[in-house]
Amino acid sequence: MAARITDLIARKRDGGELSSAEIAAMVAPDVPDYQLSAFLMAVVLRGLSDDETRGLLDAMVASGQRVSWPWPVADKHSTGGVGDSTTLVLAPLLAACGVLVAKMSGRGLGHTGGTLDKLEAIPGMRVSLSLAGMRRQVEQVGVAVCGQTPELAPTDGRLYALRDATGTVYSLPLIAASIMSKKVAAGASRLLLDVKVGEGALLPDPDAARRLAGLMVGLGRDHDIDTRALLSNMSEPLGAAVGDALEVAEAVATLRGHGPADITQLCVHQATVLAGDEAVVRRALDSGAAYERYQRWVAAQGGDPEAPLPQAPLVVEVPAPRSGVVQRCHARSIGEQVMRLGAGRATKEDLVDHAVGVIVHRKRGDRVDAGEPLATVHARGEADPDAVAACFEIDDAPAEREPLLLGDVDA
Amino acid sequence: MAARITDLIARKRDGGELSSAEIAAMVAPDVPDYQLSAFLMAVVLRGLSDDETRGLLDAMVASGQRVSWPWPVADKHSTGGVGDSTTLVLAPLLAACGVLVAKMSGRGLGHTGGTLDKLEAIPGMRVSLSLAGMRRQVEQVGVAVCGQTPELAPTDGRLYALRDATGTVYSLPLIAASIMSKKVAAGASRLLLDVKVGEGALLPDPDAARRLAGLMVGLGRDHDIDTRALLSNMSEPLGAAVGDALEVAEAVATLRGHGPADITQLCVHQATVLAGDEAVVRRALDSGAAYERYQRWVAAQGGDPEAPLPQAPLVVEVPAPRSGVVQRCHARSIGEQVMRLGAGRATKEDLVDHAVGVIVHRKRGDRVDAGEPLATVHARGEADPDAVAACFEIDDAPAEREPLLLGDVDA
Repeated sequence: MAARITDLIARKRDGGELSSAEIAAMVAPDVPDYQLSAFLMAVVLRGLSDDETRGLLDAMVASGQRVSWPWPVADKHSTGGVGDSTTLVLAPLLAACGVLVAKMSGRGLGHTGGTLDKLEAIPGMRVSLSLAGMRRQVEQVGVAVCGQTPELAPTDGRLYALRDATGTVYSLPLIAASIMSKKVAAGASRLLLDVKVGEGALLPDPDAARRLAGLMVGLGRDHDIDTRALLSNMSEPLGAAVGDALEVAEAVATLRGHGPADITQLCVHQATVLAGDEAVVRRALDSGAAYERYQRWVAAQGGDPEAPLPQAPLVVEVPAPRSGVVQRCHARSIGEQVMRLGAGRATKEDLVDHAVGVIVHRKRGDRVDAGEPLATVHARGEADPDAVAACFEIDDAPAEREPLLLGDVDA
Repeated sequence: MAARITDLIARKRDGGELSSAEIAAMVAPDVPDYQLSAFLMAVVLRGLSDDETRGLLDAMVASGQRVSWPWPVADKHSTGGVGDSTTLVLAPLLAACGVLVAKMSGRGLGHTGGTLDKLEAIPGMRVSLSLAGMRRQVEQVGVAVCGQTPELAPTDGRLYALRDATGTVYSLPLIAASIMSKKVAAGASRLLLDVKVGEGALLPDPDAARRLAGLMVGLGRDHDIDTRALLSNMSEPLGAAVGDALEVAEAVATLRGHGPADITQLCVHQATVLAGDEAVVRRALDSGAAYERYQRWVAAQGGDPEAPLPQAPLVVEVPAPRSGVVQRCHARSIGEQVMRLGAGRATKEDLVDHAVGVIVHRKRGDRVDAGEPLATVHARGEADPDAVAACFEIDDAPAEREPLLLGDVDA
């Protein structure tokens, strides 16, 4: 067996192609980590064909349980960004439109936030649901969002941990198969992929993001999931709030009709793709039905939607160091600052501080006078306003807002 | 630390260069195998600069003991071939010329034989010597050949095992650093590298073999070893005998002046490079001094140079299936046949049968009539003469012997 695995690694090293059975043998649990990581590096440098990527996805899905829902449910995945609280808005908004939502989310890592961390900022909210509990809740409230059960695509979990430690994260087919393995195993019949583009995203390059989106749409459709993808701009933070509790408050504001324009636009667009009719989506939002659904959803998972959110003891304004026009509010730097405040994880075991974060008051194209607030820092111990100010570029030249929606992607 | 190692892997993945300190950190014992194997795959596909290769060599040497001899000693390394018993001839021949030889050898793996296995075919011969024992023997007999002590370059041992299992063997800088780490640690002051070329060799391609030789010569000279390299032809087996005991008998015949022309030529050439004067070498051979030194050497390591060598119970002729001229006696296929007879190892743990093997009677350019013996198989259980016959190509066209010596290589 060992000799055969070595042959498979060598074939990929030399740019050859593996059959689906060979891919499955390569990522089987009995193959030691050191062989798997050599294979993953060969994949990063040599690529995977579409057939190989399909084979990898199938092997990952087959490694664990596969959920089957009695009704069509919708799911959504974002490739991760800074200040992206759309799931908190989108999930109840869709439910209010009559689209059932059963979604398994992740935690933040690095400079990007994670939906589970945001949900846990809500007092009492449970993010660990059994499949039976999830099903009951979808039936009663129309929406459930929880952490991924380890029974789904465990091989993906193993590969992900290994890729993280071996410099083999950045491979479009590996990313696509990883994301889609969890989605296929989770059993949604309709799926929207929000692929972020720009410096705050996993893939800054738009071409790579477009290829990733196309790959994932193809993989989803292979598995009879009605899969759509859109590209959205992540060069600046989404909305104004970055940090778990601050983003929950912003999501609630959005559901109540007075959220930031960009989050509102993105949520309405996403909901329209999944629900099919923008008028229905707007009505669910404007009528308060979406917010009412949010309250029922949170309550169903043990949370108190009316309870005050955790507040950081230190709230410090970040004054603009000069007058001018904001050229850029760097998403990645803001994400890193918020991580440094305690809201993010350097490793998966770190605890996060839900209260800390940054509220951004100016973004690209906004005028600011010297001394006016660029941002507000919510900190536990020490705030570093200068470091946050350094995330902004201010110049005399005019600057135009960049479009948020960068296009839908077909396979 | 883990994050830093991941950064180093990622830099090599992207074609960047690592400092010597970074290379040392990368191959340190506390780095897990799965990170090291991902790095090794990145090296295979991205290469190592000369500076990185030097850094890797130094890290390997520094990982263990380094031998220091009180007198200049010579060492020789062959990259491995089929029927290559030159060490058994060269070592006592050099000693008879007044050149002290202290050599650590390896075992066979795959289709290539190993000097230690051949020595162990001699009844009583010990190949495990302490450094003190080796020194005493060099002082008394002028020659000692034994297995490598695990105290020398242990990091090379770790990397080699990992490369073998992860499809990362074929990298010139990795091969060069691996070979040279053991040579530098073993403390010779004069070193000859016999880099085999052709289908029976580790590197069939002459250009790759020449680059490997140049790399190793440079590395040796960096460490003040008077290093020479030559390329020699390994498209056909060297000599006639392939198999441990059969090769010992052939080496003895060569030392007594009636060995095959090619082995004799190669040994005289190698000895001349290391001893400096062909007339001296020829005299040591012709006078019987080399053979006499062989007897003392074998006796010093507990062996009986006069004892009958192990004999296989089954001796079967391989008749030529047709008349014609031998176009090729494929070295690799012969090596594989001998391995199948029980003389080789598929894994490092396999025991070998010293008695079995093949004697080749015809090589490229030799005429043969149908039914005349192409080879003789020495087998334990079943011989498969047809499989051995299939290692030969016979045709009507004339064919010329290929040159054995393909040139000396400078750094």
